Amino acid sequence: MAESMQGLKRSHRCGELSLANVGQNVTVMGWVQKSRNKGGIIFVDLRDRSGILQIIFEESDCGAESFAKAEKLRSEFVIAVTGRVEARSGGVNENLATGAIEVRAESLRILSESETPPFPIEENSKTKEELRLKYRYLDLRRPDIQRNLILRSKIAILTRQFLAEEGFLEIETPTLIKSTPEGARDYLVPSRVHPGSFYALPQSPQLFKQLLMCSGYDRYFQLARCYRDEDLRADRQPEFTQIDMELSFVDVEDVLDVNERLLHKLFKELLNVEIPLPIQRMTWQEAMDRFGSDKPDLRFGMELKNVSEVVKDCEFVVFKNALENGGSVRGINAEGEGGMPRKKIDALVEFAKGYGAKGLAYIAIHEDGSLKSSFAKFMTEEQMDALVKAMDGKPGDLLLFAADKNKVVWDVLGALRLEIARQKDLLKKDDFKFLWVTEFPLLEYSEEENRYVAMHHPFTMPMEEDWPMIDTNPGAVRAKAYDIVLNGTELGGGSVRIHQSDIQSKMFEVLGFTPERAQDQFGFLLEAFKYGVPPHAGLAYGLDRVAMLMGGCDSIREVIAFPKVKDASCMMTEAPTPVDPKQLKELGIEIEKPEETEE
Amino acid sequence: MAESMQGLKRSHRCGELSLANVGQNVTVMGWVQKSRNKGGIIFVDLRDRSGILQIIFEESDCGAESFAKAEKLRSEFVIAVTGRVEARSGGVNENLATGAIEVRAESLRILSESETPPFPIEENSKTKEELRLKYRYLDLRRPDIQRNLILRSKIAILTRQFLAEEGFLEIETPTLIKSTPEGARDYLVPSRVHPGSFYALPQSPQLFKQLLMCSGYDRYFQLARCYRDEDLRADRQPEFTQIDMELSFVDVEDVLDVNERLLHKLFKELLNVEIPLPIQRMTWQEAMDRFGSDKPDLRFGMELKNVSEVVKDCEFVVFKNALENGGSVRGINAEGEGGMPRKKIDALVEFAKGYGAKGLAYIAIHEDGSLKSSFAKFMTEEQMDALVKAMDGKPGDLLLFAADKNKVVWDVLGALRLEIARQKDLLKKDDFKFLWVTEFPLLEYSEEENRYVAMHHPFTMPMEEDWPMIDTNPGAVRAKAYDIVLNGTELGGGSVRIHQSDIQSKMFEVLGFTPERAQDQFGFLLEAFKYGVPPHAGLAYGLDRVAMLMGGCDSIREVIAFPKVKDASCMMTEAPTPVDPKQLKELGIEIEKPEETEE
Repeated sequence: MAESMQGLKRSHRCGELSLANVGQNVTVMGWVQKSRNKGGIIFVDLRDRSGILQIIFEESDCGAESFAKAEKLRSEFVIAVTGRVEARSGGVNENLATGAIEVRAESLRILSESETPPFPIEENSKTKEELRLKYRYLDLRRPDIQRNLILRSKIAILTRQFLAEEGFLEIETPTLIKSTPEGARDYLVPSRVHPGSFYALPQSPQLFKQLLMCSGYDRYFQLARCYRDEDLRADRQPEFTQIDMELSFVDVEDVLDVNERLLHKLFKELLNVEIPLPIQRMTWQEAMDRFGSDKPDLRFGMELKNVSEVVKDCEFVVFKNALENGGSVRGINAEGEGGMPRKKIDALVEFAKGYGAKGLAYIAIHEDGSLKSSFAKFMTEEQMDALVKAMDGKPGDLLLFAADKNKVVWDVLGALRLEIARQKDLLKKDDFKFLWVTEFPLLEYSEEENRYVAMHHPFTMPMEEDWPMIDTNPGAVRAKAYDIVLNGTELGGGSVRIHQSDIQSKMFEVLGFTPERAQDQFGFLLEAFKYGVPPHAGLAYGLDRVAMLMGGCDSIREVIAFPKVKDASCMMTEAPTPVDPKQLKELGIEIEKPEETEE
Repeated sequence: MAESMQGLKRSHRCGELSLANVGQNVTVMGWVQKSRNKGGIIFVDLRDRSGILQIIFEESDCGAESFAKAEKLRSEFVIAVTGRVEARSGGVNENLATGAIEVRAESLRILSESETPPFPIEENSKTKEELRLKYRYLDLRRPDIQRNLILRSKIAILTRQFLAEEGFLEIETPTLIKSTPEGARDYLVPSRVHPGSFYALPQSPQLFKQLLMCSGYDRYFQLARCYRDEDLRADRQPEFTQIDMELSFVDVEDVLDVNERLLHKLFKELLNVEIPLPIQRMTWQEAMDRFGSDKPDLRFGMELKNVSEVVKDCEFVVFKNALENGGSVRGINAEGEGGMPRKKIDALVEFAKGYGAKGLAYIAIHEDGSLKSSFAKFMTEEQMDALVKAMDGKPGDLLLFAADKNKVVWDVLGALRLEIARQKDLLKKDDFKFLWVTEFPLLEYSEEENRYVAMHHPFTMPMEEDWPMIDTNPGAVRAKAYDIVLNGTELGGGSVRIHQSDIQSKMFEVLGFTPERAQDQFGFLLEAFKYGVPPHAGLAYGLDRVAMLMGGCDSIREVIAFPKVKDASCMMTEAPTPVDPKQLKELGIEIEKPEETEE
């Protein structure tokens, strides 16, 4: 049975009613959260987006027909109730915003019945995610996920309002674009009109926003859907949304300034959190040296210390080899963890190996000041004392050391630092520590490709003072690039762009592009740059990540209405699916037959 | 030469300066619109998004170095100028917003040089569109197209603001979805992880927004990118943007109400046009009968008249046949066109044939009241007089008649009506006539598929009073569907949706879906509908069309930054393009070889 709502009009949402409405006649509609018959009175908790409201049915008020219907109500039935708001007869329910009132029903319509849901609709569901994603439309009814999506909606709307007030124009860029296979893997879209040709879905609107600057739009933004055909992780989806912006006639400071004010506004208005401005800035080099990460979590200390100088004369071969190979020896001090059981230390060593360490050296300082160490036998007492002193080691501390190439040492200690903080429960979700990381290296050497690749992208402006080194020491050239980091997560990043065609050409050369390849892939951009380009810079946030951190969630799936899972499929619709062969025929493509596979 | 802007900061945009700034030192940046040397003084018109500002260079003010640079300036160079604002020495230029002032340059940097552009950057360009689209980044510099994109940005931002205030949540839905080949052709995206399977790009977020209603989000909106792989027309693009919304616990009136207020706000705030509310409503039947169109242009009259009764006894075989075959004879009165030369009338006949007419009957009423007609010889004088009277024909009028099946008659006269209005220049772009067309037929018969198909989509709610006819006379069942029409263009449309699974199942049956096919394509929706569905309804606008009409443009390409052309390609980037065979290999697809083609 599904009654129509013809002739009925909702007067209030459930959560909008309060003692101020007592005595009014109202019509409310929503889902039955639960229903119980207590001595001939039926109590129904009615739920909508705004909250839960108690309805009571007594036959003397609502008549036999409505009462009979009320007796049949079960969870997730959709109903419309007309009745009178009353102060609660049975005492106030402090757990409900509407707990001081109830609605005495005068009539009832059942707009839609419901089978028993495969799992209960409740906050902080214990149901395993796979089942919840299959029935995502039911999972989305849970109040916590509704709060997340409402927050996300507010973030998007506030962001647009702020940027519009700052003179940004929202301009949509195409999503059926040319494939430029640099960076991540493109999603491709076969063309029916041009068989054998393909569009790509954009990894970002990068080239288009730069062209818009060329065209004089001055300040652009877009909440842009972007696509990367990469293997998924907790904070990756095949499609994601970027808060994307670009500004003309600006330098680094201007971009940082407007974005600090944006973040300040979002956190103040949506979470009532005051971000102290200006946000702390740190060069990439300092971030790596102090935190072993280009996205340091500043909610706790445990900074890295470079002890290479201190141990340079010791006989410990691990340290010696690292230093001789141009690497370093660095440590962190896990304060108060000196009593960590051997088993837990061993687990940390294994953890470190996962990040490329060959091992992990440690010194546990007992409460009596005596040392227990994995490498004491290779050290003199003076050397050990000097090392403990350099690490600021106190009784009860645990000192952990990595020795290797700098990159490995940073990775290992950066990860260890986070792992120990996690174990010590130092990572509070409502403690928001922002940081700008600046002056990233322009290039990084790819062992795999045996060449330098752009750390950000090929359009990133080098720092003027470093540019003369581009031929002699390209790895040392810094870029006008910056990331905004929150609690160890990169929320967004950007750079000043190259607007000079000579520098751009040189960049392509350094990146190993032949002029032909540069022309083929980016010809329209290079062409555009011949006709007057303003200096410009931009930044893009991962909206999913922003919403995840603001919502205190552990995964971006909790802030995306219909997310995909690890194999890029949708549990609910089962996409992707095989399609009608007629569709492929029209596109002029065929599915490769397994027996023809060569690789 | 490209100087850096390091150390410089723009103080104003060009158009922001006025007499109020006289005496101030400013730094402005932009593009050289033109530059001329008049007696040792260099005058430069500097352009940015906000307008044009005159700069004057005299060597005594700016020094030899800057002056030498100023002498080299040419159109589209990007420069930064620091100087002092002065009242114009040479008299006010009334054509410029900043015409009362100029900036006396004290220093100049050339930030970027420019080659001579392939066409001049000017308002209402005469350059052919193909060339402009190839160099779209230059075309986008033109002030008229900048105004269009700025207007579009404002439409988007105001729309969001209004809907947010009305309690709508902006929720993003996925764009890598399951292909459901009903309606237009899908764009497909091959899956790398699931070789042989494909995602589709959405034609609209229809199913997802209905699921969101199921999930209790109550009011949803999104400016959603949508995709249709169809052949293009002036108002079609492979990708387009929809202002998409859905509301729970509402009926037709609620949707119309909120949308009227949205349109009112947009037109008032952006064009200072007051739309009279409520917007006129007309059933589909009335629209067809009076205007021969389901999207009538109400800027002029020239309504259709059904004269079947009047001519039912005449001997004109064209009229007779039409009536005998269940069709009709209808006419329009092109007032004042009675003197139209025969050649022009013949052209109208040809035009009518393009819309399916076998011919076009006409009566020209001379100023002396005598008639000239293509079919007088088959009519008695009384019949002719009665016909003229029925058509309200006056001396000097031209009466045009079509006789055929209703659909053909409507199409022909609807198109003729518009064509004559165009010829008479009755279609003023700043005259905005809105109309709701309601009560569309639920189904239309597809001769091609030999079955009924959904006029809107399979989820559209039939009108309750008509539903009993669904088996006996399905073509007569009306739907709770509505379109919003502006000046003969369908801006948007929507419907109340079916929320009862029994009606939905019946609809699929009527549409010729086997239960298996319905399950395969829409199983997740049908499943969702088992767990409590609120009554819901929605609407979607074509944002491109809204912007086009508000901007007074003739094509949606004028309100899209990077549009595609008729063959769905991008003139600027040349997308779509062939891709690296490695990319296809990874996706497990092959391009069909021409020699293997079977069809």
